[in-house]
Amino acid sequence: MVIGIDMMGGDYAPLEAVKGIGLYLSGHTIQASLLLIGDRPAIEALLSEQAIPADHIKIMHAEQVIGMHEHPTKALKEKQKSSIAIGFHLLASGKIDAFISAGNTGAMLVGALFSIKAIEGVIRPTISTIIPRMNGATGLLLDVGINADCKPEQLNQFAIMGSVYAQLILGIEKPKVGLMNVGEEEGKGNILAQATYPLLKENKHIHFIGNIEGRDVLTDKADVMVCEGFTGNIILKLAESLYEIAQAQSLNNAYFNRFDFEIYGGTPVLGVAKPVIIGHGISGARAFMNMIHLAQQMIEKDLMGKMKEELS
Amino acid sequence: MVIGIDMMGGDYAPLEAVKGIGLYLSGHTIQASLLLIGDRPAIEALLSEQAIPADHIKIMHAEQVIGMHEHPTKALKEKQKSSIAIGFHLLASGKIDAFISAGNTGAMLVGALFSIKAIEGVIRPTISTIIPRMNGATGLLLDVGINADCKPEQLNQFAIMGSVYAQLILGIEKPKVGLMNVGEEEGKGNILAQATYPLLKENKHIHFIGNIEGRDVLTDKADVMVCEGFTGNIILKLAESLYEIAQAQSLNNAYFNRFDFEIYGGTPVLGVAKPVIIGHGISGARAFMNMIHLAQQMIEKDLMGKMKEELS
Repeated sequence: MVIGIDMMGGDYAPLEAVKGIGLYLSGHTIQASLLLIGDRPAIEALLSEQAIPADHIKIMHAEQVIGMHEHPTKALKEKQKSSIAIGFHLLASGKIDAFISAGNTGAMLVGALFSIKAIEGVIRPTISTIIPRMNGATGLLLDVGINADCKPEQLNQFAIMGSVYAQLILGIEKPKVGLMNVGEEEGKGNILAQATYPLLKENKHIHFIGNIEGRDVLTDKADVMVCEGFTGNIILKLAESLYEIAQAQSLNNAYFNRFDFEIYGGTPVLGVAKPVIIGHGISGARAFMNMIHLAQQMIEKDLMGKMKEELS
Repeated sequence: MVIGIDMMGGDYAPLEAVKGIGLYLSGHTIQASLLLIGDRPAIEALLSEQAIPADHIKIMHAEQVIGMHEHPTKALKEKQKSSIAIGFHLLASGKIDAFISAGNTGAMLVGALFSIKAIEGVIRPTISTIIPRMNGATGLLLDVGINADCKPEQLNQFAIMGSVYAQLILGIEKPKVGLMNVGEEEGKGNILAQATYPLLKENKHIHFIGNIEGRDVLTDKADVMVCEGFTGNIILKLAESLYEIAQAQSLNNAYFNRFDFEIYGGTPVLGVAKPVIIGHGISGARAFMNMIHLAQQMIEKDLMGKMKEELS
């Protein structure tokens, strides 16, 4: 397998990407060859400086970079020689098996949705976030921002995609699916939640446990938490802020430290036909390493194939 | 002024209500007479047991109680002699100037909406929550649950009601109003947020500062945070859970301790013509005391009158 990495994306590019590759290659679970996409001289200099062995690595030069604040669609169209545009070309044509970038999030989404396309039957792809739980477990919340308005059928698909992800990647055998809502009983909620409940209840591909509330987000009541991207994004960013607050309060608490989302690496775009992983702009070496491992897992376990199966 | 208190509502009724009245009456800012509504013998016994002086206190016997899990509309209709039903009769007829209960939330809402009615022009009343900020300040979030689906015009009214509340009760001179959203720029968000932004921008009764995100909920970026009740309820319950998590982690951190919502007393129903305050079921003595103080402030400062002015 070949994993493509945009070396020019993120606030600390390309240094942290190079360091992350170093970490990955010094590990024991290397299954992938890496294709480093970006400014060749800069990458070569850093690889040598960091004393990273050349096995498993190839470089694909990209003479352009899409800036973090450029307009996604416009930039992707006009900068065909940018690392992100090249990455998607390579992924679409099968030259790489996964594509990772901590660069312009919008451009990554546009690329994923329009260069790679959705899995057959998927109304709209989604992005998720991991939610750390006090008992050491990990929950999954989706959508967290690309689908601010949803139909019940979309939430039903998020439940399936989230369940497959939780099974294959998070290692949860029979993920409990909860519908984010304002009360426990069936019939509670806004129009969307009320209309979604029966779909989830009848969905044989998931293990639906009913409604969950705000107080359940940080507990392990549900492994997969389903909502539209408006609510999900607000929960995600509130959860992210907990780490900063814990830092500001000098807590150094093991649980709150797990809200440092930088360590998780990135979020895969679920529902597209090939693995695309979007990293935080602030991604450091550890985040890059984790994204490479995640890409490797997604390929090894044929996540996209399993999703296609469950969704059909 | 006379403040009516439902003595039979809440998990620890009537003992904690009696204790709370004791705390209020031992303070230095007593401006109100209290009308205690509930089981007279039980109340009298507790008042005597707690050695609470009889000045400022009258008792109105109520022979029925609406249970915490009864159907609100049905219970209010069938139990005309319950403390909640009597409280609303007294408030509607002007015999009391405010009504407080930690009882059945649904019955309190139904009573507020149908016995007391909305302020002229108000599409739908709302409930809010206080959000503690790290710098010691206090923010206001609304709606937190009674309006799961909203129109832009409702959010615009929440902004006005929240601003008046923040000014008069929280003592914030020129409250900054933020629209809960998924991005900072105008044009971001779901259909509702997109349609609400221009209304808030043009609203001369408020000081609108633009969109705020999940990460801004616990900062002091906006004093008044506006959203529909679905998102607001999830944020509220997530915030409430932070206290339990901090407890479970044995943090004993001053900031996280402020997420013990029990201490705040209760939430007023905003947009109804008279002061109605709904307490948590778990309200203890301190919560009851705070609710009485809040009712007193709402009357003294003519909160409802000011809201009517700003809304017209």
